[in-house]
Amino acid sequence: MPQAGRIPEATVARLPLYLQALVDAAEQGTTTLSSEALAQASGVNSAKVRKDLSQLGSYGTRGVGYRVDELTGEISEVLGLTRERPILIVGVGNLGRALASYAGFTQRGFRLVALLDADADKVGSEVGGRTVEPFSELAAIVAERDVSIAVLATPAAAAQPVADALVEAGISAILNFAPVHVSVPDRVSVRTVDLSTELQILSFYEQLHGAIPRRGASETTSRS
Amino acid sequence: MPQAGRIPEATVARLPLYLQALVDAAEQGTTTLSSEALAQASGVNSAKVRKDLSQLGSYGTRGVGYRVDELTGEISEVLGLTRERPILIVGVGNLGRALASYAGFTQRGFRLVALLDADADKVGSEVGGRTVEPFSELAAIVAERDVSIAVLATPAAAAQPVADALVEAGISAILNFAPVHVSVPDRVSVRTVDLSTELQILSFYEQLHGAIPRRGASETTSRS
Repeated sequence: MPQAGRIPEATVARLPLYLQALVDAAEQGTTTLSSEALAQASGVNSAKVRKDLSQLGSYGTRGVGYRVDELTGEISEVLGLTRERPILIVGVGNLGRALASYAGFTQRGFRLVALLDADADKVGSEVGGRTVEPFSELAAIVAERDVSIAVLATPAAAAQPVADALVEAGISAILNFAPVHVSVPDRVSVRTVDLSTELQILSFYEQLHGAIPRRGASETTSRS
Repeated sequence: MPQAGRIPEATVARLPLYLQALVDAAEQGTTTLSSEALAQASGVNSAKVRKDLSQLGSYGTRGVGYRVDELTGEISEVLGLTRERPILIVGVGNLGRALASYAGFTQRGFRLVALLDADADKVGSEVGGRTVEPFSELAAIVAERDVSIAVLATPAAAAQPVADALVEAGISAILNFAPVHVSVPDRVSVRTVDLSTELQILSFYEQLHGAIPRRGASETTSRS
């Protein structure tokens, strides 16, 4: 069993890419994958794939590669995805609606259990088959539905007060889509996804033409 | 003038965070910022801030810090943001609509010049004050409006054919929100923002409780 605390951050950021490649392979009936095939499918170079997986204690078999089912289980366990994680979304604007209907979430170990908004006009409306509930019910919903992860999709101005309320309600991890830095106590994890940051980084590489990391967001692979 | 090609990838990924902090400071009338203040505002530790900025040739002044206007200019130049970059969005579902009205884009050096969709029912509709145009007009629009950056917000199944068409039309940088890997020629930059990847990484750190990188997406700062 790998020691999660010792896995390098950059490796953690690539594990979801491998997991996706493995899930795709399994769907196509593939039972083993070479590091090269896994590299190709995930957009990471194969030496890095082997090094990352060795961090989990997986070395594959020479001439055969990695067992798809075994490696899927190992990565899922490291990422805490062996049980379904209930999540909630705060903020039902365009982005919140897009996230609520984002199939990726439910396919990958997360279950949306609540959609909250402070706007009385939105409360009671249906989004992706789910009824929007009042933000004032936050604490009760978190407790009842055992939610520890929240997605913050409010306007920038509301982000910090909403984050404070989430922490107060017992949420321990926040995925922040508001384009501002939110402050939380050390015991709470925050990841901020700033969409214009991504465009700015892309702009840098587009200028350079030829020195291109082939994946964005949580990955910073060199070209291989 | 820094040599853009030599700036480490991890530094590039943090430059937009510093830029945001500087823009916020300027709005508040602040003219100089210490590395500690910049660190605090951007969620990066101050030693890393100083090291990153030294890569651009900016060392600040002892006891004073960095000049907000100078450093803003330097970072903008490195990121290619000194002239406004026209972008287009393909796919006007919930996510495309959210992105079209995302204020962050226009505030940070990008100008949305077209919204395209292949669905005849969506063509002609208004989104954020802009009329949706037919995807079949792609090549003409890219040429006429001098677009080099495209945001891909289609369903997964359409992503690769749309990416192929974007490349064919002369687009050189793609920000991909479809939850699939898209293949493009080496001369084209792609960054993939996979929203469930972010959640999976967050899940990992939430499990660990206490070993938390404080920013997500394009950044992988250690706790400071």
